[in-house]
Amino acid sequence: MTTPHADLATPHVAVDAGVLDRNLRAMAVGAASRGLALRPHAKTHKCVEIARRQVELGATGLTVATVAEAEVFAAAGLTDLFIAYPVWPSPSRVARLRALTERATVRVGVDSAESAAALSRAIPGLEVLIEVDSGHHRSGVAPAAVGELATTPGLRVAGVFTFPGHAYGPGRQRDAATEEAAALAAAAAALPAGIVVSGGSTPTAALTTAGPLTEMRPGVYVFGDAQQLELGACGWDDIALTVASTVVSRSADRIILDAGSKILGADRQSWATGNGRVLGHPDARITALSEHHATVVLPPGAPLPPLGTVLRVVPNHVCATVNLADTLHVVTDGEVVDHWRVAARGANT
Amino acid sequence: MTTPHADLATPHVAVDAGVLDRNLRAMAVGAASRGLALRPHAKTHKCVEIARRQVELGATGLTVATVAEAEVFAAAGLTDLFIAYPVWPSPSRVARLRALTERATVRVGVDSAESAAALSRAIPGLEVLIEVDSGHHRSGVAPAAVGELATTPGLRVAGVFTFPGHAYGPGRQRDAATEEAAALAAAAAALPAGIVVSGGSTPTAALTTAGPLTEMRPGVYVFGDAQQLELGACGWDDIALTVASTVVSRSADRIILDAGSKILGADRQSWATGNGRVLGHPDARITALSEHHATVVLPPGAPLPPLGTVLRVVPNHVCATVNLADTLHVVTDGEVVDHWRVAARGANT
Repeated sequence: MTTPHADLATPHVAVDAGVLDRNLRAMAVGAASRGLALRPHAKTHKCVEIARRQVELGATGLTVATVAEAEVFAAAGLTDLFIAYPVWPSPSRVARLRALTERATVRVGVDSAESAAALSRAIPGLEVLIEVDSGHHRSGVAPAAVGELATTPGLRVAGVFTFPGHAYGPGRQRDAATEEAAALAAAAAALPAGIVVSGGSTPTAALTTAGPLTEMRPGVYVFGDAQQLELGACGWDDIALTVASTVVSRSADRIILDAGSKILGADRQSWATGNGRVLGHPDARITALSEHHATVVLPPGAPLPPLGTVLRVVPNHVCATVNLADTLHVVTDGEVVDHWRVAARGANT
Repeated sequence: MTTPHADLATPHVAVDAGVLDRNLRAMAVGAASRGLALRPHAKTHKCVEIARRQVELGATGLTVATVAEAEVFAAAGLTDLFIAYPVWPSPSRVARLRALTERATVRVGVDSAESAAALSRAIPGLEVLIEVDSGHHRSGVAPAAVGELATTPGLRVAGVFTFPGHAYGPGRQRDAATEEAAALAAAAAALPAGIVVSGGSTPTAALTTAGPLTEMRPGVYVFGDAQQLELGACGWDDIALTVASTVVSRSADRIILDAGSKILGADRQSWATGNGRVLGHPDARITALSEHHATVVLPPGAPLPPLGTVLRVVPNHVCATVNLADTLHVVTDGEVVDHWRVAARGANT
């Protein structure tokens, strides 16, 4: 039993099943052809159905951001998990992590001697990857500090990882990928051969090569979003997730859609053209966003869509959009064919 | 049975019960003393427990943004509801609205002849408030257009309303409140005496007076947030909601907290000092926000809190934060005394 997509109340999050599958396959093939393991970041989709499909297509396991996300995927039988985050060993988190290691292969990130010592003491045998700062200047240690951190008594170092977040800017992908590779190479040189050397983001995915990297962890590629579009990391045809929304108000020079920040998210980088894009209207600009209103401006002279028109908004940052939704409505040929639960929605701890 | 607040895993959303109650009382008293009805906007808290308390303290009913929010509150026995939004009469929404009018007193916003005609035809007797643009330039008609819109056959006009959203800017509250009053006065002049004349926002709440207004609809005042702090609309002592978060990473000049955009929201107005504020550290600045990282910089020379320290972040826009949480943890004197469900979380349709 399917429902016509047009019958679903707006705003809602819709996933084009065909585009999604094409994106999943393309990244799986791309990683394999370059000899890189693919460990996709599940924070983007937070969805068991998509995670299973990624593993079917050859992913070695999943990346997650939190212990809570790891718990959700482990409970669904996805048991090879890397928590790419400097996990802080508070008593309750250590207890949950210990329980998790009993039913899944879990590795975690560390970037301080304090967390390394506490984790290895509390959970003997827990494998960690040391986080390296490759230029994003968020968490992570300098490559030169990896050797000393690795000597923490009892610590089992399985590898090193970084997130080249500074690739999120126009024209910055190539430099960021180069810096990522250099930082990981320097870090890996301080450790025995054969370790995991893990990097990668969606904007740098096409530029990532094996040696020094052994693994990549892109997330957003499954759906694409307006940021990737505007960075040139995907095309309009690669957009698998949109927010269906209705023109609810209209004036001489603008329309208002019923998709606001409470479904799209409010992410807007300084270089973005607006608060998202509109599928089929590449010249439209979302000039303002309230909680339930998107203000859309079209070029002078372009006809404004009438009240009641349903448009599909491409969110700026799809990870934020998914984390606001309870359900992804899966669409094929204009029919809603499935409803996937966003199982790890709000799994922040 | 209570739990020490310090035992709760971070990040989480905590509400100070004492500050909340003081905020609720102050606005109730302030509205009553000026002869204004108070119809608080429940989109901020989305929480039945807080809505009930607002009504106990004298609120005439609730404002909501969507039919879905109205459904949640009506199901909990809160049955005097105004949907302050240009509700578009799609078939499924009309059916839900009709069902709602059978168990609650529901009024809705209109700002077009099309929606006015369709709603009055589909739900005879439904009362509407005409939305007026008082300078925010989002939805709403010009005051001069209210008279003609009110003549739509079958339409039952209960009043006019506006949202002075252009008050969200440093030093703009007084002008916005003046423009709000002028626009509502002009709109009301086109309609019979005795109608509802509804305005108000938290930044303009203290400036709102009766005549032309009969009613105000502030939302954020219940919790306060960094935007209100930076606009001068509340003080640090009025902050009732914070996100408890842990220092998970530290370098020479910054710390990283485990509260990111997936719990705080990514809202950041151009005039904001950063991505939120830190309680007890007024000089700290949140200079960047990822999904699970807040980058916090302190003034040169200030000691950086050690790893593992729990800090309380004041989100920029509290409505976004609440809509990301499933639960509000209610705290009194360092003990978690209750857990309130965010019953209308994600209620976007």
